[in-house]
Amino acid sequence: VPRADCHQGEFISNNDARLTWLSGFTGSAGLCIVTSTKIVLFVDGRYSTQAEREKNNKEIKIMKLDQKTVLEWLKLLPKNPSLIAFDPWLHTIREIVNLRKDLWGLHKVEPTSNFIDELWKDRPNEKLHQIYQLPEKYTGACHQKKLRATSKMMKNSDTDFVIYTLPDSICWLLNIRGEDIPHTPVVKAFAIQKNNSKIEVYLEKKKISPFLTKKLGPKISFFSIEKIKSRLSELKGKIWLDGKTCPFAIVTSLSSDKTELYQSEDPSSTLKAQKNITEIRGFRLAHRKDGLAMVRFLHWMSKNSSKKLNEITIIKSLEEFRRRGKNYMGSSFGTICGAGPNGAIIHYIANDKTNRTLKKKDLLLVDSGGQYLEGTTDLTRTISIGHINKGKKKQFTLVLRGMIAISRLRWPAGLSGRDLDSVARHYLWREGLDYDHGTGHGVGCFLSVHEGPQAISKRNEVELKPGMIVSNEPGFYVPDSHGIRIENLLLIKDQFLDSRKDTRPMLYFETITLCPIDKTLILPELLAMEEIMWLNNYHRRVKRKLGGKLEQGARDWLIEACSPL
Amino acid sequence: VPRADCHQGEFISNNDARLTWLSGFTGSAGLCIVTSTKIVLFVDGRYSTQAEREKNNKEIKIMKLDQKTVLEWLKLLPKNPSLIAFDPWLHTIREIVNLRKDLWGLHKVEPTSNFIDELWKDRPNEKLHQIYQLPEKYTGACHQKKLRATSKMMKNSDTDFVIYTLPDSICWLLNIRGEDIPHTPVVKAFAIQKNNSKIEVYLEKKKISPFLTKKLGPKISFFSIEKIKSRLSELKGKIWLDGKTCPFAIVTSLSSDKTELYQSEDPSSTLKAQKNITEIRGFRLAHRKDGLAMVRFLHWMSKNSSKKLNEITIIKSLEEFRRRGKNYMGSSFGTICGAGPNGAIIHYIANDKTNRTLKKKDLLLVDSGGQYLEGTTDLTRTISIGHINKGKKKQFTLVLRGMIAISRLRWPAGLSGRDLDSVARHYLWREGLDYDHGTGHGVGCFLSVHEGPQAISKRNEVELKPGMIVSNEPGFYVPDSHGIRIENLLLIKDQFLDSRKDTRPMLYFETITLCPIDKTLILPELLAMEEIMWLNNYHRRVKRKLGGKLEQGARDWLIEACSPL
Repeated sequence: VPRADCHQGEFISNNDARLTWLSGFTGSAGLCIVTSTKIVLFVDGRYSTQAEREKNNKEIKIMKLDQKTVLEWLKLLPKNPSLIAFDPWLHTIREIVNLRKDLWGLHKVEPTSNFIDELWKDRPNEKLHQIYQLPEKYTGACHQKKLRATSKMMKNSDTDFVIYTLPDSICWLLNIRGEDIPHTPVVKAFAIQKNNSKIEVYLEKKKISPFLTKKLGPKISFFSIEKIKSRLSELKGKIWLDGKTCPFAIVTSLSSDKTELYQSEDPSSTLKAQKNITEIRGFRLAHRKDGLAMVRFLHWMSKNSSKKLNEITIIKSLEEFRRRGKNYMGSSFGTICGAGPNGAIIHYIANDKTNRTLKKKDLLLVDSGGQYLEGTTDLTRTISIGHINKGKKKQFTLVLRGMIAISRLRWPAGLSGRDLDSVARHYLWREGLDYDHGTGHGVGCFLSVHEGPQAISKRNEVELKPGMIVSNEPGFYVPDSHGIRIENLLLIKDQFLDSRKDTRPMLYFETITLCPIDKTLILPELLAMEEIMWLNNYHRRVKRKLGGKLEQGARDWLIEACSPL
Repeated sequence: VPRADCHQGEFISNNDARLTWLSGFTGSAGLCIVTSTKIVLFVDGRYSTQAEREKNNKEIKIMKLDQKTVLEWLKLLPKNPSLIAFDPWLHTIREIVNLRKDLWGLHKVEPTSNFIDELWKDRPNEKLHQIYQLPEKYTGACHQKKLRATSKMMKNSDTDFVIYTLPDSICWLLNIRGEDIPHTPVVKAFAIQKNNSKIEVYLEKKKISPFLTKKLGPKISFFSIEKIKSRLSELKGKIWLDGKTCPFAIVTSLSSDKTELYQSEDPSSTLKAQKNITEIRGFRLAHRKDGLAMVRFLHWMSKNSSKKLNEITIIKSLEEFRRRGKNYMGSSFGTICGAGPNGAIIHYIANDKTNRTLKKKDLLLVDSGGQYLEGTTDLTRTISIGHINKGKKKQFTLVLRGMIAISRLRWPAGLSGRDLDSVARHYLWREGLDYDHGTGHGVGCFLSVHEGPQAISKRNEVELKPGMIVSNEPGFYVPDSHGIRIENLLLIKDQFLDSRKDTRPMLYFETITLCPIDKTLILPELLAMEEIMWLNNYHRRVKRKLGGKLEQGARDWLIEACSPL
């Protein structure tokens, strides 16, 4: 029993929380294996304490994935051979193919209906939120144009059908949005596109109004989700799907005689990543609104930090400030708000048991973002609560240097995030320090806050291209003590340098996040002049873009926060 | 007709210069294809002008590889199918396997005897230099120990024989050296090791004395090179060889019934790359001697730069200064000495036609190195001849910043050169500039000056480990104007930081090259304080290590050259 739903996204709806129903565990990654005698819950290092605390049955054994992988555990199963059953809608083609290969000769791995769904009596119903069209003033391109573009890619790759299984791909392609999933304004759906730019969408039909169907036009037809299996069995020809994310059930529904697979990321993936002018304008607008909310929030913090605030109060307050923004549709992920030792937990979500009241000398790490009709935001600020010692300030300054180095970077077109990652780390490395996460992830436009294919990471080899958005978020964490992270979103742009013959085509980043960085945590003597200049310029821009729209108190706070170093 | 000999090294002996005999071309890379009607010489971009000038027959058509690859040209051959003949000793397994795959259904690719060898009447004889043993005071490990180590690796990989085809592997393994190849003190040989640490060496037996045979002991037996084919045909079992460098003739001599291949870099490769304490001590000593030669040379340049020196005179003078060093065995490659526009040619070798007399305002790029019994050196300095304008100084300073960033780098154990490469480049990138070569290559110990498997390059994914040596040589080139490169050799070391719980195992570089960097080319206002401190510390160390051993004039020059910025 995995934590995933059949669309393999980061967030799932309540009625897909099978793992939580079975084990009590609420974390964002995990896998439970039930045998006739045992129940074992595999989680990664960050979740082992939480899983022990949340488990709803003392028979559940928590296994740490960094100590033993699922595969290693399965290989040691005493009953050998045994039959391992899985729900083919909740596992991808790649997962099952690899598992079968690795367990070949040991255990059989076979699809079955979902036992949890049979047992889960009080399972919540799917919520029937209406799907809506996102107007072209936000998307910048009509769905017909997008369908023509993917259809052209299909012709180039000589494929007859694309099967879309990712909600963000389908929503981007058809310029529709919904409320099926927390934090991500998407619709749970599958779709099949023919290379003549006709597309069939399979979903809960009650979510779709006749008005919308009519608006979307005749090339888009909607079908009940139950019909997909029989439709898949009819397909003939070369089928484009992405084995990394496509449910195994899709491929078993296809006729192996009449079809041939072409496995690659779906054709919307790279088109979606390179934002158009309208989306870029939208991102900038969303970041101005988000910056106003953040400045008001930081001003409120500065006024109230002596009043024994706790993490949950702080999260609620920040949400209030964001809600004032026009077209704010909700947070883009569960706010990470960690004071003191909680800041060291990279994916920390405060709850009643862990909720910490701010103490003097705490560092407070707040990583949050908003979904606006115009775009998606994601930023992290680390805030000093009272006096912070010089050691922590040094760490903050090293993280900041890496963050500035990425912000200032230019690079020759053609590189991937892998080639840039070490630029953010080498100041920390010199002190023997590092952080165990990527430097940055891609971001969707009023879609997923974590949306590839690009990223700034040792593991990402996708070419960085103009119009892509990535986060820039180096950090440093001392377990049981504190965490530091500073995050802005960046837009990749073409470099227009003067055309001297010795220069070459370059790309660079425009920082789009607008929010002051806590100057009281910086040791200026550790910064190079160019770094101080970058920070002062950045603060000047934040002040210019936001100052005029703020009420007196917050504006005064902003002017002080943005004064030159 | 390729430029290679049957050991695929960078340098070849005169009697292997088949490509030069056929075409007149003397560059270090190229391939000639002769058909019944045409003769075509493929060279890369850096050699096209030279090839046009050197070709010995106007029928030869020079083809630039960046415009059309050999494969593309072969695919367009009008006579289709045709039979392509090659000498199986001069092409690797990988080359032929790929060529056959790519030309499948178009042309046949078949081995033949070497036609050039039949036609080449005045071919020089193989020079019969005696092979000598390199004492353990230089190697730090006896050959028996090395053979036991490779034998252990063979047992771990379950192989019965290793076939060594690289002279530097065989020479390292047996602690022998020779003079078969220019610049690289190796012996042309093949070897077959059994996993009981016995080894058979196939070579020109006249090069080996009975005294040496006896000294090496009974586990090493020498055979005439002619005997290798019949010996190969007898082998049974799992055979370790490196398809990237092993001649195709080796694999066709093996019995396909009785043998199975294990393709990987030969077992000496990683052992050889991580230098032992003796070798490291030797490298440091060689660099002190080389530094003295370089300081005397730079002092001589400073005294004589008004005297219309030319590139060839300068090369000879530098060689004279090196020759004074104890145990100096020759240059480790052909000195690259390029003044003005010649400095922009990355692999420039001066000859009578290109030889430039130094002019005021020239930048002079000198890239050279020595082979000492204790180790191998390789360094580049860019020297100002009179007044240099601010634009060039800015470029020099940007190159220097990258070079210092690599010199100062620490990084978490486990990374490869690929992960570090951009650290050297990002200062240039910011100005729209870059260089079209790797940042650094591995270096052998009194062996090849270019010796992997490690390198600092976007294309190298070999883990960097303590004891490895790499060069650090960012550059910048303006065609037809000037070239800038600054190169030191670096030794990779373990980091011993204080054991605070938040630090992790780190590696760092020790700079082992000792030679001043021309301060008159630096714009100090572009350097960060930490970079100025690095440079001043480096110069202080150069002065301390070399100053005491120099005569008055050179010492005074050194003291001035090393004064703080």
